[in-house]
Amino acid sequence: MKGIYFDGEKAVYREDLPVPAWDETHSRIRILRANVCSTDKEILRGYRPDFKGVMGHEFVGIVEESAKKDLIGKMVVGELNEGCGKCVYCRSGREKHCPERKVIGMSRDGCFAEYMTLADHLIHVVPEGLDPETAVYTEPLAAALEILSQVHVDPAEEIAVIGDGRLSFMITQVLALTGARVHVIGKHPEKLTAFAPYAKTRSVSEFEGDIPLSDTFEKVVEASGSPSGLALAGRIVRKCGTIILKSTYAGSTEVDMSYFAVNEITITGSRCGPFEPALKLLERGLVRLPEVEWHTLSDFAAAFASTAFKAGFRI
Amino acid sequence: MKGIYFDGEKAVYREDLPVPAWDETHSRIRILRANVCSTDKEILRGYRPDFKGVMGHEFVGIVEESAKKDLIGKMVVGELNEGCGKCVYCRSGREKHCPERKVIGMSRDGCFAEYMTLADHLIHVVPEGLDPETAVYTEPLAAALEILSQVHVDPAEEIAVIGDGRLSFMITQVLALTGARVHVIGKHPEKLTAFAPYAKTRSVSEFEGDIPLSDTFEKVVEASGSPSGLALAGRIVRKCGTIILKSTYAGSTEVDMSYFAVNEITITGSRCGPFEPALKLLERGLVRLPEVEWHTLSDFAAAFASTAFKAGFRI
Repeated sequence: MKGIYFDGEKAVYREDLPVPAWDETHSRIRILRANVCSTDKEILRGYRPDFKGVMGHEFVGIVEESAKKDLIGKMVVGELNEGCGKCVYCRSGREKHCPERKVIGMSRDGCFAEYMTLADHLIHVVPEGLDPETAVYTEPLAAALEILSQVHVDPAEEIAVIGDGRLSFMITQVLALTGARVHVIGKHPEKLTAFAPYAKTRSVSEFEGDIPLSDTFEKVVEASGSPSGLALAGRIVRKCGTIILKSTYAGSTEVDMSYFAVNEITITGSRCGPFEPALKLLERGLVRLPEVEWHTLSDFAAAFASTAFKAGFRI
Repeated sequence: MKGIYFDGEKAVYREDLPVPAWDETHSRIRILRANVCSTDKEILRGYRPDFKGVMGHEFVGIVEESAKKDLIGKMVVGELNEGCGKCVYCRSGREKHCPERKVIGMSRDGCFAEYMTLADHLIHVVPEGLDPETAVYTEPLAAALEILSQVHVDPAEEIAVIGDGRLSFMITQVLALTGARVHVIGKHPEKLTAFAPYAKTRSVSEFEGDIPLSDTFEKVVEASGSPSGLALAGRIVRKCGTIILKSTYAGSTEVDMSYFAVNEITITGSRCGPFEPALKLLERGLVRLPEVEWHTLSDFAAAFASTAFKAGFRI
């Protein structure tokens, strides 16, 4: 089959990949659409040095073979992390944190290919009427919803989102659905315009010279990807407030931890989230999705280099 | 009156301090006992460069003059932070975080003196039968109880405390009262013996070479005062677990924030706590208190230099 294979150093387009074998607990899925995520690009930069295999983890497809017969023929999406099933994490609803987990596109074959297998319990059927171009957004939307799984957002509060990228766009919309007033602070005025229907937007440069939002927000989502975003979050969050940390920063960061201790601020790390609520919101058309710039698998270099809001593969 | 006055650079023993004036909302308290806290020593090292005044914030005394007549003659303890009464913090139960707050011994006259005034609403009457030597521990015990105000501790969990100092000793006992199994990790085997009745103790050196407690605790209290304590906390806390940060570190610290984001770990800053629960535990004799090494006010240099578990003033 065709696919994009990471050989440990670089991505390679191949047409000789074996079609993966399904088994009693893993279905075989024919991939329809697969989106490029920044994590895929990080893999190209060495994020997963031990990984060799098919790349990609955001997908929608059709189940072709499965021991769960009711899945066959269904359009599905799927979670990334397959745990061992035995450890404390797998036994306490935290399979995605299993130390022995296999992650599609990162430690086992992923979805940038014609076929992929996935553990049956990680598969979610796409509601009827949802098209693949929409359903492929389930995974990043779930990551945004993880915030609401972790912390209580009071609709009467104002909440800030730092960052104007793809994840921030999902987060902003999910938060706005609670009724809370959302403020988005970003570096790119041209990107911030897309957020305007859901939030009050500000460019970071508006903060230079003074700190008008100092001590303003009970909750701040830091999704800028830059350590300066964490410093800004600390400045605008209220004492006893919460920073939800979506960003990952390369290496270590200089942080004034005493500021967080003395002001009793909470920092909560946040990553992958729940698929079913994401599918419900998509089914109801409650989240605006940017158009994807579609590529073929053989055209992977252009997809990875794309500066579009979202690039993906039509397979 | 006699008192220990910080002149902006150093502590000075004086006998010419004016007796402070009480008013409609502030009682005058005759101080009986006052304990030295590490924060007092930090003030001597420049922690509060703008402060000039009587030092000290841990005390017990007798109300001598007050507009609240029922307070007169009562033995009392008191909270540190008097807010403006108008800001969002004062109006939302967070007076101690008021940006305009006055803090005894740090931004207004404190308790290392014969008399001190305090806002009536910050005064707590000591239950009958409690002696001053016990009641003077209310403030640090309240700081330990703040943890239980902030996070839910499941008695069926195991919880770790990093640090073997005074605050850790209070924290360990408070946590042990929930029924949870507490593990204390410290650097000083000779100090750890005091913790043995309440917790399983380990010296940090037992961690060298391997990480036997890796991924073990849903909650970890970091009270070591050293950035290495935070790194250790990150290693032994479970994914999706919580680190309660009691330590303050001088300056900025190198922190791998991505580790906390990816593993969805929460870090919660924790500081001053509730006085009433502390008084209840002291009244019932549920917390063991180390003996205080008592000094006179004029002997302040020896009190500040003491290496005893706790030094204080008998006034």
